[in-house]
Amino acid sequence: MFWKQQKNRIYLDYAAATPTRKEVVSVMLPYFSTHFANAGSIHKEGVHVAQTIEKARLRLAQLLHIKPQGVVFTSSGTESNNLALLGIVEKRKKEGVAYADMEVVSTKIEHPSIQQALNKLEALGVGVVYADVTQTGVIDTHTLPLYISPKTVLFCCSYVNSEIGTIEPTTKIARIIREKAKAFNTAIHIHIDAAQAPLWLPCGLDQIGADSIALDAGKCYGPKGVGVLAYIHGVTLEPILFGGGQERGLRPSTLPTPLIVGCVEALCIAQSGYEARANKVALLRDAFISQLLLIPDCVLNGSATDRVANNINISIAGVDAEFAVVSLDEKGVACSTKSACGSGKGDGSTVVRIISNDESRARSTIRFTLGEETKAQELQVTAKLLSDHVTYIRSAFKKFD
Amino acid sequence: MFWKQQKNRIYLDYAAATPTRKEVVSVMLPYFSTHFANAGSIHKEGVHVAQTIEKARLRLAQLLHIKPQGVVFTSSGTESNNLALLGIVEKRKKEGVAYADMEVVSTKIEHPSIQQALNKLEALGVGVVYADVTQTGVIDTHTLPLYISPKTVLFCCSYVNSEIGTIEPTTKIARIIREKAKAFNTAIHIHIDAAQAPLWLPCGLDQIGADSIALDAGKCYGPKGVGVLAYIHGVTLEPILFGGGQERGLRPSTLPTPLIVGCVEALCIAQSGYEARANKVALLRDAFISQLLLIPDCVLNGSATDRVANNINISIAGVDAEFAVVSLDEKGVACSTKSACGSGKGDGSTVVRIISNDESRARSTIRFTLGEETKAQELQVTAKLLSDHVTYIRSAFKKFD
Repeated sequence: MFWKQQKNRIYLDYAAATPTRKEVVSVMLPYFSTHFANAGSIHKEGVHVAQTIEKARLRLAQLLHIKPQGVVFTSSGTESNNLALLGIVEKRKKEGVAYADMEVVSTKIEHPSIQQALNKLEALGVGVVYADVTQTGVIDTHTLPLYISPKTVLFCCSYVNSEIGTIEPTTKIARIIREKAKAFNTAIHIHIDAAQAPLWLPCGLDQIGADSIALDAGKCYGPKGVGVLAYIHGVTLEPILFGGGQERGLRPSTLPTPLIVGCVEALCIAQSGYEARANKVALLRDAFISQLLLIPDCVLNGSATDRVANNINISIAGVDAEFAVVSLDEKGVACSTKSACGSGKGDGSTVVRIISNDESRARSTIRFTLGEETKAQELQVTAKLLSDHVTYIRSAFKKFD
Repeated sequence: MFWKQQKNRIYLDYAAATPTRKEVVSVMLPYFSTHFANAGSIHKEGVHVAQTIEKARLRLAQLLHIKPQGVVFTSSGTESNNLALLGIVEKRKKEGVAYADMEVVSTKIEHPSIQQALNKLEALGVGVVYADVTQTGVIDTHTLPLYISPKTVLFCCSYVNSEIGTIEPTTKIARIIREKAKAFNTAIHIHIDAAQAPLWLPCGLDQIGADSIALDAGKCYGPKGVGVLAYIHGVTLEPILFGGGQERGLRPSTLPTPLIVGCVEALCIAQSGYEARANKVALLRDAFISQLLLIPDCVLNGSATDRVANNINISIAGVDAEFAVVSLDEKGVACSTKSACGSGKGDGSTVVRIISNDESRARSTIRFTLGEETKAQELQVTAKLLSDHVTYIRSAFKKFD
């Protein structure tokens, strides 16, 4: 379809990386070597490029139900999350609010780009408060109001958890936060990390209930190296990188035209068919989950109901996840233990550790994430391979008992 | 050759943007849709990509005469400059030096990504000191030592000034600074913005005399949206973006494989033939300058001798630069008044204002920057068009006298 899967390989790690669609590469190509000018130049070549970028910006703004002035192109979802969190706080700082008089509310199951930005804010003296999440990774909306104070300037969480696939009830969360802000007569910015959402869920900011969202083209069949911070009218923030006045002074450096047009094309394709795509892939997901749960002592991590269409995250008691993933890899299946941004450390899944409070469960998580080209037969093969691996491991251990 | 120039157009704004070489696009393509995995993933697809990136890193490190651990891939030269300036200062801060006890030495003719980062440091309480530059934009090495104090932690300047093309005597500067640091028994980091250099000058860090340099692929026939911060062994700095542990914790987010391989390919091609390229293009430059200086009251900005091969920057007394650039554009020539990152503001050239202390000269600067495909005949046409424009302007004004 849009990429040629390696022979004899089953790729089930789409949350870590998607291929760039051929049609997305096609729209990018003219901007590498032909229309290559700097969008900041005043000559015809520059103006042409600037118009192309502004057209793309407008198209994306309409897709997200915001004004084009609310679109900032960045280098990644990570940078977008950083710009939102640090940029909002710095703005308040500039308005005269001391770091110590600010609080940010989030959860302990966020992507490293949120968690590490929160750590940075904490180091600056900002209060960071973690709301409760349930055992399936859903933010507890009953206790959430307790964490909102008159000092709260920012709330942030993911739309779709990148590890366990849980969809957060962002509109309900937003309603609760806006009520509290009204009661306190304060302004609380709501930032949502939507990087894992565009292929499967509506991403209009009104539909999410967000003041700003972070997106990453590389997670939805677009090019790596480009992201978006999108925000509604009235939001003001400070830049975190400093240089030329590009992006209304919010994000300097020469605009990377190929990446921007590719990013917008990928997001538009992702959003245009998200519902049909999600329905189709969720059927595969559920059949796969049913097969996996036949493995003795296999449990699902995250919500069974409020779950993104393409995520399957399981723990199998007593089975080392890294070894299972390596073994599956040897047999032709690419999957992961957790998010790629947090992987390779061999310390288990922080997300699963937090929601389950179970160290061995955190160390035995396996994440499969499907793409729109994933086939039922691939999942059947995978389930069988994993089941065989578990049987082998357990019989091997039994010998030592 | 590697891009098709628009018909009837003469593009002379290569310092603002270069086309991406076809051969660079070719090396990038397989990493969009085939080898698209996340370099942080532990499966075969991820490992293959990680190895590709590490091979590119090693190749670049060898080119720059440093260790591969000294290469950080960023999104642009702007980000690289930010990471160097803010990252070095933050590191010293973390080591216990207060902002108020640090000084950074630079010049007032730097690119906005240096100047604005300096402003940010100043806002944090760091002392920012500006060394003298001569009337041709060369850092005055006689007075430079006066600006170095026991508080100095960082010196930064450009290798090639992006507006006036002056090449700074970086090795001499480095010697002076290292002598002062030795006398004070301090450590002073030397960061050089080399974004405009790779096509024309040697970029080994030892050849430049730098502890770190910033590069941008988009300025040397590589893709936009990727840059490099390269530093020698022993340099330590803090990240300015926060997230996953990529790039040894210095620069988070999924590594953009196509951009990285394209960036390295472009830099290697740029450096492999820089001497022959510079010699060839400097001949065109000098002939062009001679022609332009025939225009009455036309002066060259920047050094005639210490000048990058592809830069021509002039002021013509009484001729509005923006109007001249627009008029040339109408007649088929793309050039600029100053750097694209600082353009579109219509306030003249800061660089020329500083070196000349002459407001009208600053408002009448025109910059032509050549590429390796620029032809002598194009420059002849351009000189004639500009000369005609000046004659027309002056006769028109005369009518009103």
